Parts: sequence; C-alpha cells; structure tokens
Amino acid sequence: VSNSQAEVIRIDGAPVHEIGVLERGLHFGDGLFETIACVWGKPRFPALHLERLEFGCERLLLAAPDLEAIRAEILEVAAGTERAIVKVLLTAGEATRRGYGRSGQERAKRITIRYAWPHDAAPEPQLGFMIRTLTLRLGENPRLAGLKHCNRLEQVLARAELAAEPDHAEGLLYSSSGNLVSATMSNVFLVREGSLLTPRIDQCGVAGVMRRVVLREARQAGVPARECELRAADVQSAEEVFVTNALMGIQPVTGLDGRGLAVGPVTQHLQAVLAPLLENPTDA
Amino acid sequence: VSNSQAEVIRIDGAPVHEIGVLERGLHFGDGLFETIACVWGKPRFPALHLERLEFGCERLLLAAPDLEAIRAEILEVAAGTERAIVKVLLTAGEATRRGYGRSGQERAKRITIRYAWPHDAAPEPQLGFMIRTLTLRLGENPRLAGLKHCNRLEQVLARAELAAEPDHAEGLLYSSSGNLVSATMSNVFLVREGSLLTPRIDQCGVAGVMRRVVLREARQAGVPARECELRAADVQSAEEVFVTNALMGIQPVTGLDGRGLAVGPVTQHLQAVLAPLLENPTDA
Repeated sequence: VSNSQAEVIRIDGAPVHEIGVLERGLHFGDGLFETIACVWGKPRFPALHLERLEFGCERLLLAAPDLEAIRAEILEVAAGTERAIVKVLLTAGEATRRGYGRSGQERAKRITIRYAWPHDAAPEPQLGFMIRTLTLRLGENPRLAGLKHCNRLEQVLARAELAAEPDHAEGLLYSSSGNLVSATMSNVFLVREGSLLTPRIDQCGVAGVMRRVVLREARQAGVPARECELRAADVQSAEEVFVTNALMGIQPVTGLDGRGLAVGPVTQHLQAVLAPLLENPTDA
Repeated sequence: VSNSQAEVIRIDGAPVHEIGVLERGLHFGDGLFETIACVWGKPRFPALHLERLEFGCERLLLAAPDLEAIRAEILEVAAGTERAIVKVLLTAGEATRRGYGRSGQERAKRITIRYAWPHDAAPEPQLGFMIRTLTLRLGENPRLAGLKHCNRLEQVLARAELAAEPDHAEGLLYSSSGNLVSATMSNVFLVREGSLLTPRIDQCGVAGVMRRVVLREARQAGVPARECELRAADVQSAEEVFVTNALMGIQPVTGLDGRGLAVGPVTQHLQAVLAPLLENPTDA
C-alpha cells in the first residue's frame, strides 16, 4: 500500500483492504469510478462527480448509488489533508453465478481510496507541457461513451506507448473513425479564432468533470465554446491547446508533435477564472 | 462462494479467496482469462488455450506467463471431476502507483477457479437454440481484438439486453462498422452453398479456441472454411447457422430473429467430427 501512495482504504465504509476474488469488477471491469481532487479537506465540484457517477450507474444498469453516503465518506477521508485525491470506485459486486450476465443478486461494493497528491500533478500553470499524437485509436461505443467505467485497457496501452518518450506528459488519442477524442488521462481543448472547441464525447472518451466546468466557465466569461467533431487538421491549425482534468485544472500545451505553442490569451484567461474555484471548493 | 458454483479457488497456487483492493485488474480490467472445459479431469485443447493466453500477455505488454505452472494447476484442480470448468485469470497485479500506466514493478497474479459444469451448458446437440440480433454494437480496436481480456462491459450490457427474452439463449453482435462479430459468449458460423464462413476477428471480438478447432477440423474434413467480412444480409441468406464455445462445442441455431432453421448436414457432420475430441481430450 505504501508504494502506491494509497493512504486510506475503505470498502463499504470499513477499513478493509481486500475484496473477494469473484468480484465482477475484477473479472469484467464491471464498475465505475470517480477521481476527486480535494483541497483543504473539501472536494472540488462534488455535485458534478456524483451526477456523473449516478448517470454511469444508470447507463450500466447498476443500482443507484447512495450519493449522500459517498459525499459524506469523501469528506471523512479527506478531512485534515491540505491536498488529497479521493478515488471512489463502485463495482457490480461478487458474482453469484458464472458468466458475463449479472444475476441481479449481486451486492454492489463501494471502494474509497485516498491517495497522496502527486508532486507532478500541477506544474506551474504557465509552464505547460509537451504532448504528442499516439498511434492507438479508441474503439467507439455510444453506450459506454462519457462514462468513467473500469474498462481501461485502451488507456493502459496508451500510457505504455507514451512511456517510451519520458519528456511528453500526455498523448493525444483519436477514435477508430479518426476523430479527436482526448488525451490519455485528460480532456483536450483547442482555441481557434477566439473560440473554444472540444471533442464531442458521444462515441468514446470520458466526459471529464473539469471539461464540463471549463465549458461552463468559458461561456459565463463570454468566450464562445462548443463541443464538435474535430480532426487532425483542426489540431494542427489550433492557436492554443490545453488539457484538463480534476487534478491539474487547465494545463497549457506548449509542444504538440514537435510544434511549439505559446500559452495564449484564452488559456490564460480561463486559468485565471478557474483558479479560485480550484483553490476554494464549494458544494456545487 | 457456494452460490456462484465456484468450487475451488486459488491465487498463485494458494487457497486464498481475496485479493488486494489496489489490484489493477479491479481498477482497469487489466488482465486476461481463459475458460477451459475439463472432461474426466483433462482439459480440452490446453495447448490452444495456453497459446492464446501467451499471445494476449504479449499484446497487453504483460509478463510472459508460466505456462507449465498453469497447465499443472489446471490438471490439479480438475482432478477427480467428471466435468468441470476451470477459469484461469491473469491480472496485472497490485498497482504500485496511481493512474492508468503500469510502473513495471507490479507482480502479476494468477487466479484459478474451478466451477461446477452448468446443467444447461450443452443441450442435446440436435436441439439447437434460438438467437436474435442485439442492438448493442461492439467498438473496434485491433490492439484488443481476439483477446479474452477483462474489459467486458460490452458483453455485460449485451447479456442484459438478451435477458429481456428468456427463450433466447444467445444474441448476435455486430461491430460499430456493421460487420458481424460473434454472439455474446460464443463465436458464430454460417453455412452457405456448402462453405463454412465465420467473421474475421481482427477489429473486435474474441478468437475462441473452439472456433479455431472447428475451422481446423472442417478443413481436415474437406469442408471449405474461411474467415471473412460478413454483413446482416449474409446472415439472412445462410442455410445453416451455429455457435461455438469451449463448453458446448457446436450448438446449432434453430431460430434466428424469428426465422426457423434446420440443423443442416454441414453442422451435423462437424458435430460428429468434433464429438470424440470433446469427450476424450488430448494434450494438443
């Protein structure tokens, strides 16, 4: 446990570190998770995380989660920390029969893990990092698109591809149809002629909470923002590029497949708008 | 454990029933499995199962498995049973850090489970069963195609769709490109003008061991057999249809989306060819 920087582990509220080997989460990736950044013991955007989790359970035909219990547990495990990551994983539960189909008799499990905040989570916001396009393409399935489910072999392989180039912190992923989707663990935004563009997440990819916040805050700040189909040519002609996730907020991309990019005015503006929301989480 | 008909459980050879909650298999479905039918204590087609497992580890960048240890353990847990199913699950191991990327420090785990042979595994070979086309489409990813990996949410959702019609034992699945792929837990074969046709498994689907055996045995028996791209029209014009998996061997389809089908001569011939191989497993 210490190696992984997992500091607190709970299963259905109890300080247990093991699960039964018949767990469907283990056999089929039959589950969902949220990765929630906490600052001064308070989760960022808890309502949006819980909403996605609830939506995911509905889509995967899992029992509706006890959102109040989850909300309380996040606060409990994050209490007393300056910065922490809380992962909440809901699994379908132990199989009561063999095979892919659920029996309906399984009892879903809630696994909550607090991790130490990584040193490299958020480099200086002005610094940015280099990303490159990966060769792996994401399979398309609208039934799974948007969800933070536990079928993540594509991301595992994408990270392995990226590991070959240690100076690149992220990699761009396209779908099997050739549409831009996201990076391996973050969503991606382009700026073109003052407009903010981000891929639609209706065929594959994860609809990140920070992505949703950025779209909302951009619109409130008067920046035209839309979700659309984006191709490689759109990426190449972008004036600004940034990626987002729950931990790092907005991270500018300063190198993209060898092309240098400045941290542009729209990126800087949105970083400034976001900063107080990231540092002083509210219940919204 | 009793409910699920899991009769024997081993983790890395030990009679342990629980795994650590940081297991990457649980978080990301980061693993592979084989479902091996055993008759009179002997596994069917062990060499083919182990070959696929080894190939899968290579493709998922997991450490090469100890095939001799796996082979020995299958025999050990199946010993003394008339019919049994042995599932071997290889996981990437406990995470040594947070996130999708492996650190390279994980220690892969081998989970071996013996299940009771299901009563309904192989109905009378002449009986056949009804199948229907499901609405769910499988996402395409050549990097994962063919493997029996642990990212199985699509199959979970497909079985849920099928559960609404209890008189149908299986459901046909097409890819997002509209190509026929397989059923939910079996491969599919069509017979047209005396030729055996089965979908290529290069974009999605599992390359079943029984599928491979059927292709091989058909060719040896002089039945023209090939893997190809198949569409809905090909299914509709098929004279015979059957599905295959490790447990049931060849199962004729006698009803397909409401259309009645006879158990035709090619199906019957191949069932007869296969029968001794299924009842008297060898080491091949």
